[in-house]
Amino acid sequence: MYNVSEKVNLVDIAGRAGVSLSTASRALNNAYGVSAATRTRVLAVAEELSYVVSPEASRLAGGSTGRVAVVVPHISRWFFGEMLAGLEEVLRSADLDLLLYNIDTLDHRRHFFERLPARRKVDAVVVLAFPVDEQERKRLELMGVAIVAAGGQSASYPFVCIDDHIAGRQAMDHLLFLGHRRIAMIAAETPLAPGWPKTNQRSAGYYSALEEAGIAPDESLVRTVDWGGEEGAKAMGGLLSLKDPPTAVYAHSDEVALGAIRTIRRAGLRIPEDISVIGIDDHPAGALADLTTVHQSVREQGAIAGRTVLAALKHEEFDPAIIVPTELIIRSTTAPPRRRGVL
Amino acid sequence: MYNVSEKVNLVDIAGRAGVSLSTASRALNNAYGVSAATRTRVLAVAEELSYVVSPEASRLAGGSTGRVAVVVPHISRWFFGEMLAGLEEVLRSADLDLLLYNIDTLDHRRHFFERLPARRKVDAVVVLAFPVDEQERKRLELMGVAIVAAGGQSASYPFVCIDDHIAGRQAMDHLLFLGHRRIAMIAAETPLAPGWPKTNQRSAGYYSALEEAGIAPDESLVRTVDWGGEEGAKAMGGLLSLKDPPTAVYAHSDEVALGAIRTIRRAGLRIPEDISVIGIDDHPAGALADLTTVHQSVREQGAIAGRTVLAALKHEEFDPAIIVPTELIIRSTTAPPRRRGVL
Repeated sequence: MYNVSEKVNLVDIAGRAGVSLSTASRALNNAYGVSAATRTRVLAVAEELSYVVSPEASRLAGGSTGRVAVVVPHISRWFFGEMLAGLEEVLRSADLDLLLYNIDTLDHRRHFFERLPARRKVDAVVVLAFPVDEQERKRLELMGVAIVAAGGQSASYPFVCIDDHIAGRQAMDHLLFLGHRRIAMIAAETPLAPGWPKTNQRSAGYYSALEEAGIAPDESLVRTVDWGGEEGAKAMGGLLSLKDPPTAVYAHSDEVALGAIRTIRRAGLRIPEDISVIGIDDHPAGALADLTTVHQSVREQGAIAGRTVLAALKHEEFDPAIIVPTELIIRSTTAPPRRRGVL
Repeated sequence: MYNVSEKVNLVDIAGRAGVSLSTASRALNNAYGVSAATRTRVLAVAEELSYVVSPEASRLAGGSTGRVAVVVPHISRWFFGEMLAGLEEVLRSADLDLLLYNIDTLDHRRHFFERLPARRKVDAVVVLAFPVDEQERKRLELMGVAIVAAGGQSASYPFVCIDDHIAGRQAMDHLLFLGHRRIAMIAAETPLAPGWPKTNQRSAGYYSALEEAGIAPDESLVRTVDWGGEEGAKAMGGLLSLKDPPTAVYAHSDEVALGAIRTIRRAGLRIPEDISVIGIDDHPAGALADLTTVHQSVREQGAIAGRTVLAALKHEEFDPAIIVPTELIIRSTTAPPRRRGVL
């Protein structure tokens, strides 16, 4: 690992070797993702330019800080707590410590990435369901350590997540099979990164299911909110104010679905007799509300991310793209629709 | 701070100065909780015996590792996530890093405390709602760093928490005011530490409220379970199998209450018409279920714990026992009981 005063050297090496800064950094630090040929070339150039890897850097590259940084957007949400629990267990079993960074506002986010270079005191960074933009990605890579994403797909790093498109299809196909045709969607997205991922795959599942069923999408039935129950509750109010409300609601998460359920109940309507509701997650609070959902093993995703980190640190082979399966859990909030006009 | 080879020295110093090992350690490390007179005496003895504080120790005592260890029993539960969020924000604002240790089984617990001495690489330890036994307390103190408890009272360390007895009274007095006399309690306790705290104050609130109302407690109405919704659901099944079921249920937490609600609904009974339910927490899932509860600011408790850590590290004054107030939040799961015999 290089320090700030050696930065010019690294730029020189990268330029001379014809590789990017991050590739040069990775090659010098013996990090994954660099071919043997490239590494040899970069090391040769470094030797030629008398680039000296600092002792602390060697220690870091060898994994001996014993620490892994974990970046989460909302530590108090169940999803991230479960992820952390799975991750922490694996890291602890390898005697690695977990440094936690909770990045829940744009200010924190800026601060975190600005200070990243000062945080070259970890062996790896795990990014939990946290969309990283191009500039942030560059700062992360400048650290020259292993980076793993969990809970969301990443083109840049090894990742573990569910197939959101399939999860959306499992929810929608269940509602369609029951006979629903007027199906609303309460979509959720991260306000810290509107529009990320470019194509929200849980929404894509909604549209592809409708298309296959020969149903023209009605945009008045689609609401997009921040992740969370109160947001789902509000969106449901909008859906119930339609002249022709939906007979079923597909929510992007169980928390959003639970909010929708509260609004439906407050309106004096019954679930599932008047309106069916389905979520995604298998959140424990969903189980307590007898919510039909699409299950994902969040703790397992955290554990897999942890094992990916261990493999990367030991320079062992690992699968850079792991998809954890999801499955439909039918409880008591979904049923066939009543005949038109009854509602 | 002393290392293992210096242990004999510390024993000598403590003996000569007439103080405990931990007091000697604290005095040498300039930690809080030692009077000026004691510190002077210990330092004089140390000088006499040529005890040398190691350079790393001085650095640690000065707060310059820049890290705080946080020990939690169940990271994936909302309560601990909220605590962590409040704590992390304060620590980050002081540029301190947070090392997370999730101790969710007896094995992990043993492992953590066994390895504690090897973890002398933090400035402070925060223990979140985690009952620490006498032996563990000694190991913690041997680290010679600041220790703060949050989410539970501690006789040994500075702490921040709610008054559980008052919270229990707020819940019970509400049910009694509504006219309930046959009130069940689903008590929760931590299986890692059965019987801790010695007197469960949320239970004490139940009994004192009944006594003041002139109602003899009926032990068939009291169930004790682990914290959690599924556990509450099961306990409620037992209560509904009584010949004379309760007209109201006081649960030690919202999650336990939500489980009870599911069981009541599955039995075809209505809430609050047939049975009232109240919890403690103001968990977001409770709000989504319109659950009447006793609110506590968990995030604020985490933030206060963080500020206590900062004060201890700067050797500033701080309040060693902070009680955060709670308040009744009435939603739709409580109402006056129907006349006897209707249920």
